[in-house]
Amino acid sequence: MSERAALVERALERSVAAVDGPASRLSEAMRYSLLAGGKRLRPVLAIAACEAVGGNMDSVLDFASAIEMIHTYSLIHDDLPCMDDDDLRRGRPTNHVVYGEAIATLAGDGLLTDAFAVLASSAGAQPAVLMQAIIELAQAAGSDGMVGGQVIDLLCEGRTLSLDELETLHRKKTGALFEAAVCCGARLGGASAAQLKQLRVYAQALGLAFQVADDLLDVEGTTEDAGKRTGKDAAHGKATYPALMGVARSRELAHELVIKAHQALKDFDVKAAPLRALASFAVERKS
Amino acid sequence: MSERAALVERALERSVAAVDGPASRLSEAMRYSLLAGGKRLRPVLAIAACEAVGGNMDSVLDFASAIEMIHTYSLIHDDLPCMDDDDLRRGRPTNHVVYGEAIATLAGDGLLTDAFAVLASSAGAQPAVLMQAIIELAQAAGSDGMVGGQVIDLLCEGRTLSLDELETLHRKKTGALFEAAVCCGARLGGASAAQLKQLRVYAQALGLAFQVADDLLDVEGTTEDAGKRTGKDAAHGKATYPALMGVARSRELAHELVIKAHQALKDFDVKAAPLRALASFAVERKS
Repeated sequence: MSERAALVERALERSVAAVDGPASRLSEAMRYSLLAGGKRLRPVLAIAACEAVGGNMDSVLDFASAIEMIHTYSLIHDDLPCMDDDDLRRGRPTNHVVYGEAIATLAGDGLLTDAFAVLASSAGAQPAVLMQAIIELAQAAGSDGMVGGQVIDLLCEGRTLSLDELETLHRKKTGALFEAAVCCGARLGGASAAQLKQLRVYAQALGLAFQVADDLLDVEGTTEDAGKRTGKDAAHGKATYPALMGVARSRELAHELVIKAHQALKDFDVKAAPLRALASFAVERKS
Repeated sequence: MSERAALVERALERSVAAVDGPASRLSEAMRYSLLAGGKRLRPVLAIAACEAVGGNMDSVLDFASAIEMIHTYSLIHDDLPCMDDDDLRRGRPTNHVVYGEAIATLAGDGLLTDAFAVLASSAGAQPAVLMQAIIELAQAAGSDGMVGGQVIDLLCEGRTLSLDELETLHRKKTGALFEAAVCCGARLGGASAAQLKQLRVYAQALGLAFQVADDLLDVEGTTEDAGKRTGKDAAHGKATYPALMGVARSRELAHELVIKAHQALKDFDVKAAPLRALASFAVERKS
């Protein structure tokens, strides 16, 4: 997995080139957040899903870059003063703290837009399959997916949610992008419709498990461990799994969801071993 | 042309549906800015370019929606307090004045992302041609195009630019999207390489003419005429054509550029009549 993460780093480095000239500040800001490390969970999931269906890793690397660029843009915009107003991310000052709000907003816009140029320029994939991946990624990241989830999250601050409402929020805000990572990775690897269906179940369980673990980290982790401020959910009156069902039951739920993710892979052979490992990894050690 | 603009309105209405539920505020904010009128110059240019090469209008309508969604997102983000801090656009309060900064930022993000879903879902186009259109649009709107131009504009405030620097700024900030409108519209209509080359010259001349006219409007127009605050360029110390070469020479330049745009169309037949009319229209009556 660390070998695959290293491949992702090189692909990301190529995706957003450092440029000279008057717009150099923009590429600097984009690279500051994009190349700040992180577990690269979404791109590694995409690669693992591609390999699980017998695909070649090369056919998914541009998609892997694109989804990490989109994840990174969402972090930059989420951290803005008008949103969550965070000053620390991946252990470093957030983008707007370093570059100012205007450049941070534009760095996010640039990463989001360039992600589609990187993906559409991807060599090696069949145009019809690549088009399906573009549609799925855009829908997962757009107003009916991640952006919609962020709006629900903002509007629900300070209000008690039901468990169903909390699940809807997370399915959109973080789950949709995990699902796109796995399913688009599998599509680009040549997945059958039956395989896609099983992998979607896997990805949905993993995405929710990841969010429960993230909520637990905010309660239990230190800022140093997490690389971002912890204890913020409670301070902002955000609905979380620990707040709704307690810490012990939340840990059980995360565990159950990992089992569900593993079960969805029962028809897959040894090539799905990285996907199996990632389901556990996402809950144990997240970023 | 008004018939084509009406078609665009209906396509835009379909592209961003009004939704119920917790994310309804997001679609409301997206629709507030997207359906606020405006001349729809970029989508109408795309349709006219498609028709100029003998293409069918139906094959370009989704692209027309996508480019107007991207133009609208850029207006919402440009108007934010951390950017140009504008309170009036198309004769109405700007998005963040009505919905707040957080929702306005996310409405822009949603429009930008959904634009690629709309475009990639476009029926009727060959996948390989559609993919070229996605690449060209993303590159025109991204860090090396519109977003890069916006950064240069921000960083150059209060500094005197050379004519070359000013042209580079505008080629990226507004020109790139005009070029994509015309060239992608023509691609989707089945343009030959030779036709694309001529239409690119047309679009570059038109884009620059539009910007010179926009600078003149800021000096000479009233807020009521323009539907946005005028006189802001001088107040912000922005480099403009009238500031650099005077009002009279700027008017001449706009006129020369329209002639250049017309000349680029000399090999086209009567089907390019709307494109010819649009070059003049863009300079006379802009929004």
